[in-house]
Amino acid sequence: MDFIPPTLEKITEAHSRIQDYIHRTPILTSKSINEITGAEIYFKCENFQKIGAFKIRGATNAVFQLEDNITAVATHSSGNHAQAVAYAGKLRGLKAYIVMPENAPKVKVKAVKGYGAEVIFCEPNQKAREEALNKVVERTGAAFIHPYDNEQVICGQATASKELLEDTPRLDIVMTPVGGGGLLSGTSLTVNYLSKGTKVIAGEPAGADDAYRSFNSDQIFPSVNPKTIADGLLTSLGQRNYSVIKEYVDSIICVDDQEIIAAMQLIWERMKIVIEPSSAVPLAALIKNKAEFTNKKVGIILSGGNVDLGKLPF
Amino acid sequence: MDFIPPTLEKITEAHSRIQDYIHRTPILTSKSINEITGAEIYFKCENFQKIGAFKIRGATNAVFQLEDNITAVATHSSGNHAQAVAYAGKLRGLKAYIVMPENAPKVKVKAVKGYGAEVIFCEPNQKAREEALNKVVERTGAAFIHPYDNEQVICGQATASKELLEDTPRLDIVMTPVGGGGLLSGTSLTVNYLSKGTKVIAGEPAGADDAYRSFNSDQIFPSVNPKTIADGLLTSLGQRNYSVIKEYVDSIICVDDQEIIAAMQLIWERMKIVIEPSSAVPLAALIKNKAEFTNKKVGIILSGGNVDLGKLPF
Repeated sequence: MDFIPPTLEKITEAHSRIQDYIHRTPILTSKSINEITGAEIYFKCENFQKIGAFKIRGATNAVFQLEDNITAVATHSSGNHAQAVAYAGKLRGLKAYIVMPENAPKVKVKAVKGYGAEVIFCEPNQKAREEALNKVVERTGAAFIHPYDNEQVICGQATASKELLEDTPRLDIVMTPVGGGGLLSGTSLTVNYLSKGTKVIAGEPAGADDAYRSFNSDQIFPSVNPKTIADGLLTSLGQRNYSVIKEYVDSIICVDDQEIIAAMQLIWERMKIVIEPSSAVPLAALIKNKAEFTNKKVGIILSGGNVDLGKLPF
Repeated sequence: MDFIPPTLEKITEAHSRIQDYIHRTPILTSKSINEITGAEIYFKCENFQKIGAFKIRGATNAVFQLEDNITAVATHSSGNHAQAVAYAGKLRGLKAYIVMPENAPKVKVKAVKGYGAEVIFCEPNQKAREEALNKVVERTGAAFIHPYDNEQVICGQATASKELLEDTPRLDIVMTPVGGGGLLSGTSLTVNYLSKGTKVIAGEPAGADDAYRSFNSDQIFPSVNPKTIADGLLTSLGQRNYSVIKEYVDSIICVDDQEIIAAMQLIWERMKIVIEPSSAVPLAALIKNKAEFTNKKVGIILSGGNVDLGKLPF
């Protein structure tokens, strides 16, 4: 692995580059969830972010660093990165082409089209996505913005935990979900640079546990036929992301869909906020391994809020 | 009608009395909802309030003014006032007895019991509620805290719009839902005292339109067999509330359940917050009479967020 992780300076530059286009999202606490879990939790609410998810951070950072001769951008995504590239492209006046799996939540497809992007549907697996994407890039000359295996995207996603650390007391642990690893790798870098000694722990759906298996091995196991309600976490871990995660993350905890749904319901009922299933994965992991978090100050990044209200699991 | 409306001084006193026990809830805006409606809307988020609804304001104000020899409190409520009295009673160390209709949302019943209150179920109509309540008061000597037809409760509910006016630019219109009229009467007084010229407009479910009919007449029409998804607005308008509303409210707009559900979905999807159907009624009214609100600065009180996730209308 010869990927050199981005420096703190690059993350700070990314933050300056994107901050006029994103929200500095609020950090919420819940007395009753603290009582239930025995931890002191600070929720960084990226569900309130532009396009409803943290993905706008990485996409905006990447799109705004493209050369001036680029006229279009393209990507494949199960949803939030799709919206992010569509929105960031629009901000910079570029045409956006988005490859989406045909089972992507309707609300996400609608939003992508709402930003003026062209949607190309494909079968819901990694191979089909990449093939469709390659065809689009060949046809249009669009610049491909990878959802996570991209240094600029990692730097952008790293800014969420930068804000979290700046806006809370010193944290013992920072948690994120892990799918492709963009948010987790960026988070682990930020925490390493700004808050040494703070652990980074990820939650992952048991039905899409490629990051868990890869992390506890010496190679990347691709995600094959993943099945989980956390539709944002179906993708395979990226190369760059893997090398960072392997170095800077402390552990990954797997949770099943029932645990994810229970944590999601807890957040909806007690905090009165809408989060998507992927966002609930870290809290589910915390609840599963409760003892490890007792009396700890824990920052959790709630990754997004784009849920299909017609298909809720309650 | 010889009810003398509470003065601004009483409302200000209520605010001082309760402010250590309640949240000063945030005011949120939504660019996309502003674009859709053509209005500039400021949402006062009482769904984030203690017990998940504005009702804690009135209940706390009333409970903390009881004589020291009182040992218990009682009320009847379809839900949020029940939790409010249970919680306020607990704060003051008083036993609470709560009469609830047997069709009250499970989440509300659970919460009331969670505050240590005793729940007495009755048939879902005004007569059954009052009979059950009278029995409890006779048996226990508890002080009855009326959900809305009570001066202290009106003063407490009036504090939500006091904060709204203090925390926003000058508003052209303030909107609330109307059920028993506690929030609407309190709001109309505050607006009259603090922001003369600002209109007060209520939204009411067409299936429980007793306030609309009473407002446009010279007498109170009781709510008979009301049917609406807005379970917080099934009650009949109170005497004190009616006399204030008749004098200080500008208009009441009725909306059907489909309009309420559409407005609720808009808020969930665009703002990523959980509100109960009653909270969506003012926005539904605004959307229905859109022209009246174009380019206006409108404050909307989102009354609560206690919704049964197992019974969503989407």
